[in-house]
Amino acid sequence: MFSDVDIAKQKAAEEALKRVLSLKPRILGVGTGSTVDVFIDMLPRFEKELRNVTFVCVSLYSAYRVAQKGFNVSQLSVVSEVDVYVDGADEIDSNMNMIKGGGGASTLEKIVAYASRYKIFIVDYTKLVKRLGEKHSIPVEVLPEALNVVYKKLKELGFEVSIRMVKSGKYGFVVSDTRGVILDVKPSTDFDPKELELILKRIPGVVETGLFVDMADEIIVGYPDRVEVLRRIKT
Amino acid sequence: MFSDVDIAKQKAAEEALKRVLSLKPRILGVGTGSTVDVFIDMLPRFEKELRNVTFVCVSLYSAYRVAQKGFNVSQLSVVSEVDVYVDGADEIDSNMNMIKGGGGASTLEKIVAYASRYKIFIVDYTKLVKRLGEKHSIPVEVLPEALNVVYKKLKELGFEVSIRMVKSGKYGFVVSDTRGVILDVKPSTDFDPKELELILKRIPGVVETGLFVDMADEIIVGYPDRVEVLRRIKT
Repeated sequence: MFSDVDIAKQKAAEEALKRVLSLKPRILGVGTGSTVDVFIDMLPRFEKELRNVTFVCVSLYSAYRVAQKGFNVSQLSVVSEVDVYVDGADEIDSNMNMIKGGGGASTLEKIVAYASRYKIFIVDYTKLVKRLGEKHSIPVEVLPEALNVVYKKLKELGFEVSIRMVKSGKYGFVVSDTRGVILDVKPSTDFDPKELELILKRIPGVVETGLFVDMADEIIVGYPDRVEVLRRIKT
Repeated sequence: MFSDVDIAKQKAAEEALKRVLSLKPRILGVGTGSTVDVFIDMLPRFEKELRNVTFVCVSLYSAYRVAQKGFNVSQLSVVSEVDVYVDGADEIDSNMNMIKGGGGASTLEKIVAYASRYKIFIVDYTKLVKRLGEKHSIPVEVLPEALNVVYKKLKELGFEVSIRMVKSGKYGFVVSDTRGVILDVKPSTDFDPKELELILKRIPGVVETGLFVDMADEIIVGYPDRVEVLRRIKT
């Protein structure tokens, strides 16, 4: 049995795949997470259309899954331009700003998204929030050497901070694919995402944050019975 | 035979060591580079005074050298506060802003400096410049995965950029102790260091830059016959 949320994810992923096919990317960026997994599972349906596409994935896991389905996977370090990017998100507000990185990959997600000409995010309806930070902390990837320094600084700035732990399969701290540790930072109830992003990024040792501000071109929100599409008006 | 510059470095290092002893640090941060090497070589002269000091070093090389001389070396990841920091610099302007990272360690240098209560920089007189960027490019450490993305973005922003190569002992790109690659970015002739620092740090994939703005508490400039000390007025 599929839950409403499962069906919503499928609807969003299907719509994203339609969009991708119409955009005819040469290089397609793929994020990571449960909604992206649904998207990846649908790729073989369009084997013919996607045969010549080069995939760039933000996680080893996504790269592995896409390659297993027989598609061409390259790496970002040799590809400097991505045509279309598809990824999920943990929270999205009405300004299309997002918190991402629940899957521990926000650094590469941000780099690939930044390098992509058109950025599509797919979520189920439970990810919409009035204010960012309602349900999720902000993941902050930190160089291991700076763990204590950054932790202490964030505490001084008044944030609740926790070091992300692995729940099973490894003992202790989560290590990201980019070899960082992840601090989950609970923001104050009323913060400006752009401002907070700068405050965090200015701390030496912070590699990247899970705040995605002014990043999405298109957000596809899946519901059990429909999709809704938000588009950024290009200025 | 010692050159004038060698003697100037020794004078600066000697003055720094005097300062350090007077400040009685419990935890002493040590940078890296040729002037710092002179400083490290002087440490055994004060074996008794420094016996109980814990050293935190920004490079594996400095840590190895300090440990070889019999002092206690810890690591930054478990030490969140450093009392005094001593490091060199590649260029210093009249506002005490600096370019650092010729030795490929600017990321850890900045993290340790940031974590230190009092920051002393020691240079020979040839490092003083009217404008930052006169002689040196700005090192920008980048996640390997983002190499091409950041390179391309910097070019788009109008900078001359080169990927730092190893000259011998390893073929190809320099890899930093923090596992990044290093882009040397030539700024325009007239730039605001604080502003440029922000522009660079906002590019996803940039880990840290070699621009040190408002960082130094004290700069000790060695000349063949004297030292001059610049101090920041704490506001």
